Amino acid sequence: MRLKRKDLLGIEELERDEIELILSTAESFKEVSDREIKKVPTLRGRTIINLFYEASTRTRTSFEIAAKRMSADTINISTSSSSIAKGETLKDTAKNLEAMNPDCIVLRHSSSGAPHILARLVKCSVINAGDGSHEHPSQALLDMLTVKERFGRIEGLKIAIVGDISHSRVARSNIYGFIKLGAKVSVAGPPTMMPAGVEDMGCSVRYRIEDVIGDADVIMVLRIQLERHKVPLFPSVREYSRLFGLDRQKLERAKKDMVILHPGPVNRGVEIAPDVVDGPYSLVLDQVKNGVAVRMALFYLLLGGSREQAVD
Amino acid sequence: MRLKRKDLLGIEELERDEIELILSTAESFKEVSDREIKKVPTLRGRTIINLFYEASTRTRTSFEIAAKRMSADTINISTSSSSIAKGETLKDTAKNLEAMNPDCIVLRHSSSGAPHILARLVKCSVINAGDGSHEHPSQALLDMLTVKERFGRIEGLKIAIVGDISHSRVARSNIYGFIKLGAKVSVAGPPTMMPAGVEDMGCSVRYRIEDVIGDADVIMVLRIQLERHKVPLFPSVREYSRLFGLDRQKLERAKKDMVILHPGPVNRGVEIAPDVVDGPYSLVLDQVKNGVAVRMALFYLLLGGSREQAVD
Amino acid sequence: MRLKRKDLLGIEELERDEIELILSTAESFKEVSDREIKKVPTLRGRTIINLFYEASTRTRTSFEIAAKRMSADTINISTSSSSIAKGETLKDTAKNLEAMNPDCIVLRHSSSGAPHILARLVKCSVINAGDGSHEHPSQALLDMLTVKERFGRIEGLKIAIVGDISHSRVARSNIYGFIKLGAKVSVAGPPTMMPAGVEDMGCSVRYRIEDVIGDADVIMVLRIQLERHKVPLFPSVREYSRLFGLDRQKLERAKKDMVILHPGPVNRGVEIAPDVVDGPYSLVLDQVKNGVAVRMALFYLLLGGSREQAVD
Repeated sequence: MRLKRKDLLGIEELERDEIELILSTAESFKEVSDREIKKVPTLRGRTIINLFYEASTRTRTSFEIAAKRMSADTINISTSSSSIAKGETLKDTAKNLEAMNPDCIVLRHSSSGAPHILARLVKCSVINAGDGSHEHPSQALLDMLTVKERFGRIEGLKIAIVGDISHSRVARSNIYGFIKLGAKVSVAGPPTMMPAGVEDMGCSVRYRIEDVIGDADVIMVLRIQLERHKVPLFPSVREYSRLFGLDRQKLERAKKDMVILHPGPVNRGVEIAPDVVDGPYSLVLDQVKNGVAVRMALFYLLLGGSREQAVD
Repeated sequence: MRLKRKDLLGIEELERDEIELILSTAESFKEVSDREIKKVPTLRGRTIINLFYEASTRTRTSFEIAAKRMSADTINISTSSSSIAKGETLKDTAKNLEAMNPDCIVLRHSSSGAPHILARLVKCSVINAGDGSHEHPSQALLDMLTVKERFGRIEGLKIAIVGDISHSRVARSNIYGFIKLGAKVSVAGPPTMMPAGVEDMGCSVRYRIEDVIGDADVIMVLRIQLERHKVPLFPSVREYSRLFGLDRQKLERAKKDMVILHPGPVNRGVEIAPDVVDGPYSLVLDQVKNGVAVRMALFYLLLGGSREQAVD
Repeated sequence: MRLKRKDLLGIEELERDEIELILSTAESFKEVSDREIKKVPTLRGRTIINLFYEASTRTRTSFEIAAKRMSADTINISTSSSSIAKGETLKDTAKNLEAMNPDCIVLRHSSSGAPHILARLVKCSVINAGDGSHEHPSQALLDMLTVKERFGRIEGLKIAIVGDISHSRVARSNIYGFIKLGAKVSVAGPPTMMPAGVEDMGCSVRYRIEDVIGDADVIMVLRIQLERHKVPLFPSVREYSRLFGLDRQKLERAKKDMVILHPGPVNRGVEIAPDVVDGPYSLVLDQVKNGVAVRMALFYLLLGGSREQAVD
C-alpha cells in the first residue's frame, strides 16, 4: 500500500482516505520503537536528506530517528554550514542535491511554499517539515494520531485551537486535517493573531479562550513564537498569559475527559501553566512519541516499494 | 555480565568491582578497533543520543565512534542547533527525547549535576560526558585503563594530579577512581586553584609541582581552562607556565619509569612543554585510543542484553 | 585493483594510469546510485572522518553520501564545533583522530598543504577535499569523468578554464589532470587573477575570454570567490561580469558541440548567465552526480581490500 503521490507538502491537498492510511500505517510502526532492536530493514540503501533552513532539534531529531529505524541513510544539512551562506538559490541547492540521487528531502524553510517549489524541481520525494506560516503536515498527522488513539475516533470531536493562529503552520495543518476527518474545529486568540478569512477554512472563530474551552474534547495550545513577530501583537507576555494562557483556573470549565495538546517546545507559564502541561490531561509526550511513528509511516508510504509506482 | 545500574553519572558512586568490570570489558573491546572491519553487531537497532550543551569534538567523536562500532544508531544534538535556543528547560528536552525511545543519552553540560537530573527524568541510560566542575567519569576510566595497561596494576601506584584542581571534573573523577583502586593520589596547584576540603577525598595536597613529581608513577597534567575562570586565578599564563608547566627541567627529578597523562586538548607551552607531550613518557595518544574502548564497554555494560535486566 | 598510495592529496603527483584507474572505477560505481538499494557492503566497518575547517555543504554531502553508499561509518567534524576553537594545532587534532583508528580522513582546509602535513602525521588514508588555493583533486577527477563520458575521450580535447586562476584550487587540479590525460588547456582571466608562471604548468594563457572560447571543446567557468580576496582584483562585480561572465552573446563564437562546466556553487549572473548555466551545453549537474561516483571510487581504491596492501 502506498500513497499515490510523490510528496507530502500539506494536509490541505490530502484526501481523507490518505490521512487515514497514514494514521493506520503509523499505528503499525509504533511497536517498532518499543522493541529492543528498534529497526526494520525496509528502507536500507535509501538516502534521506534533512535540509533545515531553520533550526529545530525536535523535528530534525524525530525525522532522523524515524529514518534510521527504517534503516535509511540520513544526511543532515543546516543553514549555518551550507552553501546558502555562499548565496546559492533554493533551486540550485535542489538541483544539486537531486544530482546525488537522494530518495527523499525533508525540508524546513522560513518561506511559505518553499517545499512546493522544491517538489517541482526534483524527482525524489519531498516532505514539508514546516514552511513559514503555511503548513507543518507531519505535526498535524501526529496530533491526529494522538487524538485518535485516545478517543478511538476523530469524527464528531470538538477541537479548540488556542493562540497565534495567524503565524501558526501547526494550526493551519490541524484545521485542514481535523475538519477532513469530521471533527468540529474552533480557533481562539486575540484579534491581532487571527488571520482574515479563517472561517473559510471551515472553523468557528472566537476571541476569548473561555468561549472554546467549555465543550472541547481537545484543546490544542499553540506556542507563542515571539521570534516570528515583526510588530508586537499584544501588550506584553504577561497580558497574553493572563488572557490566553491555559491554567488550572481556566480549565475548571473544561470537560472531564478532555485532553490537551501542544506542539512544543513549551513556553512554561506563558501559553500554558507548568502544572497543566505536566498534568493528567496533557498528551504532549504522546505527541512526540507518535511523531516518530508518523514519520516512519511517511517514509514508508512515499519511498517503500519501487520508485516507479510512487510517482503519480 | 552487566552493570547493575541504569546510568554512569560519576566515579564517586561506583564500587571498585564495577570499575574493574568496566576496565576489563574495555580491554576486550580494544581489539575491535584494530580490526579491518571495526564493528560488532551487539547494539544494532539501539538509539544513542549525544546531547552536548558544550562543544567538544574530541569527546563527542569518541562516543560517536564507539557507538557506531557497536552498530548502534547515533543522533547528535548540540546547543547551537537545539531547542535550548528557544528557551526549553532540560526537563522538557529530557522528556521529549525520552518519548522518542532512545536507549542512551550521553550528556555534556556546563552545570554540575545536570546528568543526575536527566537520569531521574528518563528511563533510558544516561552517561555523563562531563558536567560543570563535577565529574567526567569516562575520562577517568580511560585514564585508569591507560595506567593499568602500562603498569599491570593500579594498586599501590602514586598518582600526581597537577593544575587547576578546583575547576577540573577530570581531576575529581580521577581522584575518586584511583583511590578506589588502591592508588595514592597527590594533587598540586596554586592555592587559588585548590578546592577547600580536597583532602577529604583522600588525597594529599601540595602547592608546588616539585613536591609531587619526585615519587610519582603517573603525572596527570590538567588543561588550563581559561574559559571557565570568572576571575583570574593567577597573574599570567607565563607565570603559571613557569611555576606549574611540566617541562624537561622539572622532569629531571621524576622517576625513570614514570608516565604522563593529559586529558587534552593540550595547551602546548602552557601547562606542558611541547617536547614533553610528544616525548617518551607521554601516554596522551594511548588515552585517546582507550577512550573509544572504554565508551564501547560502557555502552555494552549499560545497554547490552535486555533492557529489563539493566534497570537496578 | 588498488591505488599504490595511501593518500589522495593532489592531481599533480598522480600518474596518468592512476587517473584512468580512478575514472574507470568511478564509472563502474555510478550504477550503484541509480539502484533502488543504493548501497554496497564493500567498506562495512570502516570509519571515515570528514574534517572540514571550511564550510562546504556540497563537498561534505558528496563525500558523506559516497561513504554511506559504500557502507562505511561516517563522522562529521566542522570547525565551529571542534577543539580548534580551543586552540588545538592541526598536528594534535591529527594524532588524536588517528588514535581513534579511522580508516580515512577527508580534509578541507584553508591552508595550502594542510592535507600533506596531515598525511605524514597519520597512518590512515587522507583525501584532500580542497586546501587553500592549492588543489581540489576529487573535483578535477569528477570534471574529467564528466568530460570523458561526453566525448568518449580526453586526449586531444581543448579545455578552456576561465576566471580567477590565481585563487582557484579547482583550476590547478584540472590543469594538471587534463594535461596528463593529453588535453590542451588554455586559461583566461584578468591579469590580476593570473598566477605568475602558470605557463610552466603546460597551459597557454590569455587575458580575454573571447580568445579561448572559439575553439574550446570544454569551457570551465570558475566561481568568483569574493570571500578569498584580500584586495579587490577587479573594479566591480559588474565589470567582471561584463568582461568575463559567460553569457549567450559570448557563446556565439563557441563550437556547436562544446560543453560548459562549473564547480558550483554558481553566482548566477556574475561569472555565468542564468540561461547558460541552465542551458543545453551545461553539464553542471552531471558533475555533481559524478562527484558521488568519483568519491566512492576513491574510498574503494584507497581503503578496499586489506590495509597492508594499501600503504605504498
